[in-house]
Amino acid sequence: MVREMELRQGEVAVDMPSARDAGLVFIGRIRTPWTSRLETPRQGRHDGPVCQLEIFEPWVAAIKGVDFYSNLEVLYWLHQSRRDIVLQSPKNNGNTRGTFSLRSPVRPNPIGTAIVKLVGVEGNVILVRGLDCLDETPLIDVKPDRCEFTPLAPPQPGDFETE
Amino acid sequence: MVREMELRQGEVAVDMPSARDAGLVFIGRIRTPWTSRLETPRQGRHDGPVCQLEIFEPWVAAIKGVDFYSNLEVLYWLHQSRRDIVLQSPKNNGNTRGTFSLRSPVRPNPIGTAIVKLVGVEGNVILVRGLDCLDETPLIDVKPDRCEFTPLAPPQPGDFETE
Repeated sequence: MVREMELRQGEVAVDMPSARDAGLVFIGRIRTPWTSRLETPRQGRHDGPVCQLEIFEPWVAAIKGVDFYSNLEVLYWLHQSRRDIVLQSPKNNGNTRGTFSLRSPVRPNPIGTAIVKLVGVEGNVILVRGLDCLDETPLIDVKPDRCEFTPLAPPQPGDFETE
Repeated sequence: MVREMELRQGEVAVDMPSARDAGLVFIGRIRTPWTSRLETPRQGRHDGPVCQLEIFEPWVAAIKGVDFYSNLEVLYWLHQSRRDIVLQSPKNNGNTRGTFSLRSPVRPNPIGTAIVKLVGVEGNVILVRGLDCLDETPLIDVKPDRCEFTPLAPPQPGDFETE
């Protein structure tokens, strides 16, 4: 069972800082088949259903060239998640783990990341497979998967640095 | 040459929305050997120098269990980057690419992601190799690499879904 907002036995919540240190702009909206957290997969699958990344203005021009890649990295905002729990009980059995040792949506900055398969581009929509989030999830970023990406810009000294 | 704030020939900047849709909390600070953008690698290397993820309160308890994994995913805030450029010229030659087809730090939400090798944990510090960012970069999130992670919580219907 996924959590709504309840704390489980042994879990620890902290007082969230009231200030924010940086602001995000939602660049689009993700359309998936899942409208309930009870149905949403725990992780995406590359043979899963086609999902849509709808890009909002003024960012549509930034799509140019994404169809060069077969895999993209997608960042999204898990807007229904608590942010204040540092020790979590994923199995709801009282055994806790630190939030940074989990890929749970419950985290200080609830950002999901996925590596997806590109299906195609249609206007302001990027079609992909491999997502694991609710319909209407806000989109934060899209970039080529690091495994496929060789920087176009000239190399820098740190590129060659080893200890 | 990395960019400071200048636009290059053919690049397109847009008017950024003045509102912010969500707020980030910096959970720590990254310590690396690089204090100039001219020296910083374009991508991290797993045989690169050891870097430190200093976790701030109240998030230190969330470290529990990260030492179970050999690879972690790290999210960080590229605080010196422009956010308004949708077409970029990485080679500074007038040929432009969409921001979403680049891993450039210049993007609407300047979040970097890296898969790093865990070296160890010392108190509130996670030691890793494989980063590519400036010293003092704000830390946003740490989680297990998806390749190593099997969700602990019970499966859900979407886990098995194919088209």
